[in-house]
Amino acid sequence: MTEQTISVGGYLATRLQQLGIGHLFGLPGDFNLGLLDELLGAGRGPVPLRWIGSSNELNAGYAADGYARIRRGPAAVVTTYGVGELSLVNALAGSFAEDVPVVSIVGMPSTAAQSAGLLLHHSLADGDHGHFVRIAAEVCAEAVVVRAEHAARTIDRVLRRAVDSSKPVYLGVPADVARVPVNAAALARPLRLLRSDVEAAAEFRAALTEHLSGSTGLTVLAGPRLHRRHLEDRVRAVAAHGGVRVATQSASKAMLDESHPATLGVYAGEFTVAPATRAAVDGAAAGGTERLVLAGVVLTDFLTGRFTHGFDPDAVVDLQLDHARVAGAEFHGVHLEESLGILEEIVAARTGAVTARAEVRASSARPITGDAPLAHAEFWPILQDWLAPGTLLVAEAGTSFYGALELTLPDGCDLLGQPVWSSIGYTLPAALGAVLAAPDRETVLLIGDGSAQLTVNELGRLLEQGSRTTGPAPTIFLLNNEGYTVERAIASPEAVYQDVLAWNWTQLPAALGAPATAVFRAATSADLTKVLAERRADPQRPALIEVVLPRDDAPELLKVLARSIR
Amino acid sequence: MTEQTISVGGYLATRLQQLGIGHLFGLPGDFNLGLLDELLGAGRGPVPLRWIGSSNELNAGYAADGYARIRRGPAAVVTTYGVGELSLVNALAGSFAEDVPVVSIVGMPSTAAQSAGLLLHHSLADGDHGHFVRIAAEVCAEAVVVRAEHAARTIDRVLRRAVDSSKPVYLGVPADVARVPVNAAALARPLRLLRSDVEAAAEFRAALTEHLSGSTGLTVLAGPRLHRRHLEDRVRAVAAHGGVRVATQSASKAMLDESHPATLGVYAGEFTVAPATRAAVDGAAAGGTERLVLAGVVLTDFLTGRFTHGFDPDAVVDLQLDHARVAGAEFHGVHLEESLGILEEIVAARTGAVTARAEVRASSARPITGDAPLAHAEFWPILQDWLAPGTLLVAEAGTSFYGALELTLPDGCDLLGQPVWSSIGYTLPAALGAVLAAPDRETVLLIGDGSAQLTVNELGRLLEQGSRTTGPAPTIFLLNNEGYTVERAIASPEAVYQDVLAWNWTQLPAALGAPATAVFRAATSADLTKVLAERRADPQRPALIEVVLPRDDAPELLKVLARSIR
Repeated sequence: MTEQTISVGGYLATRLQQLGIGHLFGLPGDFNLGLLDELLGAGRGPVPLRWIGSSNELNAGYAADGYARIRRGPAAVVTTYGVGELSLVNALAGSFAEDVPVVSIVGMPSTAAQSAGLLLHHSLADGDHGHFVRIAAEVCAEAVVVRAEHAARTIDRVLRRAVDSSKPVYLGVPADVARVPVNAAALARPLRLLRSDVEAAAEFRAALTEHLSGSTGLTVLAGPRLHRRHLEDRVRAVAAHGGVRVATQSASKAMLDESHPATLGVYAGEFTVAPATRAAVDGAAAGGTERLVLAGVVLTDFLTGRFTHGFDPDAVVDLQLDHARVAGAEFHGVHLEESLGILEEIVAARTGAVTARAEVRASSARPITGDAPLAHAEFWPILQDWLAPGTLLVAEAGTSFYGALELTLPDGCDLLGQPVWSSIGYTLPAALGAVLAAPDRETVLLIGDGSAQLTVNELGRLLEQGSRTTGPAPTIFLLNNEGYTVERAIASPEAVYQDVLAWNWTQLPAALGAPATAVFRAATSADLTKVLAERRADPQRPALIEVVLPRDDAPELLKVLARSIR
Repeated sequence: MTEQTISVGGYLATRLQQLGIGHLFGLPGDFNLGLLDELLGAGRGPVPLRWIGSSNELNAGYAADGYARIRRGPAAVVTTYGVGELSLVNALAGSFAEDVPVVSIVGMPSTAAQSAGLLLHHSLADGDHGHFVRIAAEVCAEAVVVRAEHAARTIDRVLRRAVDSSKPVYLGVPADVARVPVNAAALARPLRLLRSDVEAAAEFRAALTEHLSGSTGLTVLAGPRLHRRHLEDRVRAVAAHGGVRVATQSASKAMLDESHPATLGVYAGEFTVAPATRAAVDGAAAGGTERLVLAGVVLTDFLTGRFTHGFDPDAVVDLQLDHARVAGAEFHGVHLEESLGILEEIVAARTGAVTARAEVRASSARPITGDAPLAHAEFWPILQDWLAPGTLLVAEAGTSFYGALELTLPDGCDLLGQPVWSSIGYTLPAALGAVLAAPDRETVLLIGDGSAQLTVNELGRLLEQGSRTTGPAPTIFLLNNEGYTVERAIASPEAVYQDVLAWNWTQLPAALGAPATAVFRAATSADLTKVLAERRADPQRPALIEVVLPRDDAPELLKVLARSIR
């Protein structure tokens, strides 16, 4: 190849690096070996992409998703045709449901073999090689098979689509295409992402100024799409002004520090823990001199208390990734970065009366008692006291996530969970992605035994990578409550399908390739307090703490949720 | 409910039982709890369906596939909407590619919630509840959402489709529909499966008689679709007649006992081990006085030596599930059972000259030497000597399957593998299905370390169920060769993506809930011989034997295959 050309795989690798991606997740397979060699060897970034092999493709997809969320940018995962990519579908669907830009790169049979309809292994043996890209199209913003012609332009378009939409995309790369030389000139200019429409932004500014005029208080409901655009600072800027209060959704808990004077905590309709929070958000939408601004929110069942939110998005201000609405009038092409900036400018320019802030504080920790079997009522307060500022808390759907929602988190903490898609097992590999994206932060994973069984094959890799962090090594709390407690809370707690096989959790790190892990087991409050103190004394070793909890006990919020589903 | 009605879930359960299904595989989830209660409690078979909970949905799908293959009939797997069913897609695609009738039953949100497009958890949060059934339709013969109206007829139609086509099908059951009462009268008549078209069968008989007249020898290539119809006995009946020889495909190895005088062993074009076998099959198609009959064959790349088979299916006799062809003339509606029966009648009626049978025997075991590190050249002969008649050998894609193909199996053995779809990790859960389908047989699983990492979460369940068999308990040979040896053989053996994390395999059974497992490790021929003797002495305990093999060594056949892919 001459100076001016680069292979398609190298081109793609370079684009990924320009988007800030440092790690590639995935597994090798018959149809992606050449592609992997190009991706890992032929890119032109300052350092090559680093390969993170996973035990299986679902785990690789979950890890990529966690990586993307924590680095606030795209991630990429490479699998092989059919047998690899199909194991990823659940993860990609979760990325779609939760607005995470994961680039799924699939090594495919050669263009000629596909065109000829050959009955290849890893195909359905029916001569149709279009099944899998059609499947991907159901869970991606865009799914294409790259052709040698226009390969660079196709790659650019699809990557831009991932970032602009904050959704997963799919690039199928036939074996022959991976090595085709393309013109490298385009790489001199990094991908330009869509900017707001200037005229629409001006119109939005006018409409928002009008809408807010005469108001004395402003409540912002800050949703998870703000994380996707890394706009936490801008939320803090808005919150710094008088008369502003900020509630978050459960998917964005602690976006504003929970000690911040403007914080209202988590709002989720009738699932809201603090009645004052619910009253503040719903009240701001009720007219009068208060105004409600939705920013990057997602209004699904779990995030709205099963649609018991007390506002109509058409009647308030609703800022979304690629449009903004003011009392139902839509300003298309006004992006979240822009609309939030305009909001801040308007708020900053306001003078005059502002309402006093309501103090909404979570209840303080309960007194902890000694040697009785541990229950959720004791576990969460003990954990809360132990968590350090800046912790990256990863909480599995079910008891873990709903328990974590009730915590008041120290400043600088982040909560990573999956309350929209809620695929059990997600957080264990996602924590691996988080550790790689933020090696300087302390990652703490909370996961139940039923959930951990789905993706335990990534435990060793998580602990092994966790031993290489620059900050404290990760801690895994394995909440052992003998099965699917969240499902038991919904129906048929005694049914045979609620049981799982009893594993020996403290043996697993060594068996799965991470023998240097510190392992603990706690069945009482006294145990747990002691274990946590030991854990703090040895922060550079990854740890797994098995926490034994009663089978049918659950955090309060989960009980509310289960009643509602019933 | 009155005497005459039954819930939709109960109706479905009864139909599954009538099809001979005894076990349900799957996991519970928010949208299938009520459905599970109906399936497990409201059926009307002699005994209720038995629930086999898996660690994750992919494993459940693989287990169901293995169960269906070994019982020679359908299997069923139950998952929940979105997060559950999507993890199953790879398994269903494998069932499609390899003609296995797995019924995927998915508990969905209520019909009303779907119609309203509610933004539910476990959905893509875009209001479209059709994504997942459209995905299923890509990998199933039929995929439908059951409506309350005509629920019974829909279930009957879809189940018949699974059995007739020997492909997976998908039944989405909304939460409200699961409990709707339907008329139970139809259950008095078990499902009638399609029979051959009488006229077409008569025409086929005439054409086949004509085609075979004047021939002196008949070679049958017996493929895996014969297993799907449980036609092994009929193959034996054909093979009993003079002048008949039978080769199998690698996917149906040992369908005819490998000591049977008519056997030609495995035929796979240029991947055929014995040159005489290749010559016999290709020669029978060459005209003259020999004839070639393809029976239930599948002509994919791996099964044909990458399309180096020496015959044209349009020029010979080709018997398929729902049609037969004689020299290109198609007789639609003549089913495999019928066409094979007609073949046997014609062969039985023949008198006169028959050719002598060629003796095609696999090479005998090589001498085994002592304390040097074990290599494939020693491992397979030692294994062959140890295998008992009637063993159900389950061999993972890669070194295990291609090593197993070179064995001469004792009488009554079956080889379960996945040479068309070839999804690594498949066999570990599939062996669980096999153990449940044939608890009286000895199951022996061969799997490499790279593959086992994908689905290891089912290891405990396999060993635990394996301790309850009526025959000898299963033995797992874990071939530890430090990563993806099959991919190394194809390209880039030193690439970082070929490595896996080193696990402590002999610790895993106890950690994963099967502490009563006998565990062994063998790194030399002497070790292995000793271990195998110990294993025979204690047949009622499940066992895991870690076999340490060189990283870059492989069975001969795999080397040929890898060269061909390269």
